[in-house]
Amino acid sequence: MKRHLLSAADLTRDDAELVLETAAELRSLADRPIKKLPALRGRTVVNLFFEDSTRTRISFEAAAKRLSADVINFAAKGSSVSKGESLKDTALTLEAMGADAVVIRHGASGAPHRLANSGWVRSSVVNAGDGTHEHPTQALLDAFTLWRHLGEERKGGLEGRRVAIVGDILHSRVARSNALLLKTLGVDVTLVGPPTLLPVGVESWGVETSYDLDAVIPKVDAVMMLRVQRERMQGGFFPTPREYSRRYGLDGRRMATLQDHTIVMHPGPMVRGMEITADVADSDRSVIVEQVTNGVAVRMAVLYLLLGGSESESTE
Amino acid sequence: MKRHLLSAADLTRDDAELVLETAAELRSLADRPIKKLPALRGRTVVNLFFEDSTRTRISFEAAAKRLSADVINFAAKGSSVSKGESLKDTALTLEAMGADAVVIRHGASGAPHRLANSGWVRSSVVNAGDGTHEHPTQALLDAFTLWRHLGEERKGGLEGRRVAIVGDILHSRVARSNALLLKTLGVDVTLVGPPTLLPVGVESWGVETSYDLDAVIPKVDAVMMLRVQRERMQGGFFPTPREYSRRYGLDGRRMATLQDHTIVMHPGPMVRGMEITADVADSDRSVIVEQVTNGVAVRMAVLYLLLGGSESESTE
Amino acid sequence: MKRHLLSAADLTRDDAELVLETAAELRSLADRPIKKLPALRGRTVVNLFFEDSTRTRISFEAAAKRLSADVINFAAKGSSVSKGESLKDTALTLEAMGADAVVIRHGASGAPHRLANSGWVRSSVVNAGDGTHEHPTQALLDAFTLWRHLGEERKGGLEGRRVAIVGDILHSRVARSNALLLKTLGVDVTLVGPPTLLPVGVESWGVETSYDLDAVIPKVDAVMMLRVQRERMQGGFFPTPREYSRRYGLDGRRMATLQDHTIVMHPGPMVRGMEITADVADSDRSVIVEQVTNGVAVRMAVLYLLLGGSESESTE
Repeated sequence: MKRHLLSAADLTRDDAELVLETAAELRSLADRPIKKLPALRGRTVVNLFFEDSTRTRISFEAAAKRLSADVINFAAKGSSVSKGESLKDTALTLEAMGADAVVIRHGASGAPHRLANSGWVRSSVVNAGDGTHEHPTQALLDAFTLWRHLGEERKGGLEGRRVAIVGDILHSRVARSNALLLKTLGVDVTLVGPPTLLPVGVESWGVETSYDLDAVIPKVDAVMMLRVQRERMQGGFFPTPREYSRRYGLDGRRMATLQDHTIVMHPGPMVRGMEITADVADSDRSVIVEQVTNGVAVRMAVLYLLLGGSESESTE
Repeated sequence: MKRHLLSAADLTRDDAELVLETAAELRSLADRPIKKLPALRGRTVVNLFFEDSTRTRISFEAAAKRLSADVINFAAKGSSVSKGESLKDTALTLEAMGADAVVIRHGASGAPHRLANSGWVRSSVVNAGDGTHEHPTQALLDAFTLWRHLGEERKGGLEGRRVAIVGDILHSRVARSNALLLKTLGVDVTLVGPPTLLPVGVESWGVETSYDLDAVIPKVDAVMMLRVQRERMQGGFFPTPREYSRRYGLDGRRMATLQDHTIVMHPGPMVRGMEITADVADSDRSVIVEQVTNGVAVRMAVLYLLLGGSESESTE
Repeated sequence: MKRHLLSAADLTRDDAELVLETAAELRSLADRPIKKLPALRGRTVVNLFFEDSTRTRISFEAAAKRLSADVINFAAKGSSVSKGESLKDTALTLEAMGADAVVIRHGASGAPHRLANSGWVRSSVVNAGDGTHEHPTQALLDAFTLWRHLGEERKGGLEGRRVAIVGDILHSRVARSNALLLKTLGVDVTLVGPPTLLPVGVESWGVETSYDLDAVIPKVDAVMMLRVQRERMQGGFFPTPREYSRRYGLDGRRMATLQDHTIVMHPGPMVRGMEITADVADSDRSVIVEQVTNGVAVRMAVLYLLLGGSESESTE
């Protein structure tokens, strides 16, 4: 595995499977009362968040702490470093303070790549979401969830499984990272959404597209709903909320058309009643809560693999 | 003891005394240079604060860290989860991330009960203040402070001791939790305040009430002053600040009418010069600073008892 | 060493050299994968920040965590305690919660002294910047950086070395603390800036002054640039930014007039293009990034020396 995790596209199939297997080992910790491992004792993980994202931040924080790393939260929003011009100096500062990994969330697409590829830092950079571009650890936790349900006990893993990703593909870093990673793992992906929210040329990702949710979902093994950003649901460009919900929301009626083994996923936070109804979200098919648990396990795996944890050098 | 701590009314006398005794053992730590115990190593305590309360948050944070738990601070204010509708999803998320205890502060009365009683989570829920309703760990730390001064070396503990709680009873969760817990411990409680700030029907808590501070305080063993919320001191409903201070403030003249052994308490932060004068706050009778120390000890006891700390399962 | 670190003027030469030597030992940790020492296990360091300063806060946080202390961040800004009147109650509260050291940043000059000298607290107080007054750990990290480059292998250490401090001396707590500490260490200091930014009577610090940067810098062993606060660059009192940069900025042309061994320093964050050009900041002479690393080491040394870390009393 490379030194940074910037894009789902950086991961070879071997890389991705190594993360999934490591996460599986670490996930077993969640069932024990003592969840802590000494693997990253003495290492420092900095959460450098230029945008608020409490969920993602605490998922990384929990992951790092369970590996006994020290965590420093750096909410750059509003501070002098929130201006793009000083990303370099911020990076140099964190590096000089001894950060071993920088988990960065930034509103500008490409900011983590700039941080990692500039030669400014030796520490590992983990992309925790950059603009509308990528969110690779979300893709890994989704793949891990799929794998536990649809691949683990199957020859070839997820090879040939079918997944629908539904909603606002255009603005979704989750959709892009998932599409890229799932292709690497041999999954057949169909992106479903209204024409205005399916970006032109998206077929180049190696996926299929459709405007017709009802036609797609009976054939897939997993339905991955995306969060709807209501603030975009106005003007002529987008459907109205009611129209959106009617055509692209997942409700009980639609759920009844799924195959028996098909699972329902959502990256959270959900807008219940919009892209997903409460009965679907809380149904037996839903693995939404498990995705959160898997998020911690996958982020533990990523930090562990990037930082090459070693127990043998402890000073205590 | 139950799995959650939601209300002072949930505690039997045995429960309450167990907390006080555990706190007494843990409090002795405060006099040692190394204050850390391994009891909750590997456990995760989440401070879920929908309202700002730096004092309460850092008291819980210090308590959890001294027991070697990992602490994650989640300031929900302003984030997408601050809307009541998503409390369920927030709870599910924290649970799924591995929280062993959720310490919740919320502006809506009853929010901690909703969190605990919904079946959403297996983790322990600790009410750190909900609306104008309850603040049970404040009541426990106040009871612990009373017990150290007035009950520890006495047969029957606090049985039959007299305490006056003074001020804005109507809006005070501290008053309610204290009244409930002190009754459980056999203390005679008198609530004192202006007619507009003494809620109708409060006698049902099993307490006495009075509008006349001067008549009450010479008879009690402890005077517990409440914080005045100045923003409420306007309009025809409340007394003016000057009038309030004259009739319900504790100054040197009134302090002179107390019995020799009577102590003065305040939950903080104080409005010096309003409900209490500086000379009273800093006098020998004042145990206000000790209350803060006791707060950490009591919260350690609560977390320890709820999470059933065990050292034997450490992975290290 | 005294119990507090409030002012660079409090440090004798022996004190200062003890900090530098301790920092040198601790700095060697930065080259090892496991950077953690158990020296302050069980101790609590509170970062009490009345002003935002992410860099200084995380430097202290990293330092404390590397010594295994527990860290509690208390951003007082906006909270009820941000009013000066309650500094006493805040201090009493932190003390009562078991803080062993309080690292305070405050907008009012003298606030750390008030905290330390009032008799309110037994814990150690570290000044992390008070108004326009002092910033002693910045001075120590600058002295440490100078010492590593110009003093370590030299009889007499920094004795007789020459340093120019350049820019807005009037408003700079960094300039004052540096001037005081460097005099203690026997360094010849020249303060350089426009007449309006050189305070009257500054010669009483035992330093020289000059308005002419070009005349000074060829003679010195280190040039310490100060950050320009643009918001002050208006009205008749101050030069314009362009004029400032032309007369007091460090660019490639000026850098060419330095002696071969002369180093360039800046406390950060830099305004590239204003007080320093990018080519100078990134040149081989620049030790700006090293200053950040040294900041963690010096703060480790200060916390270690103030709290008298002891490993022998661990409870584990």
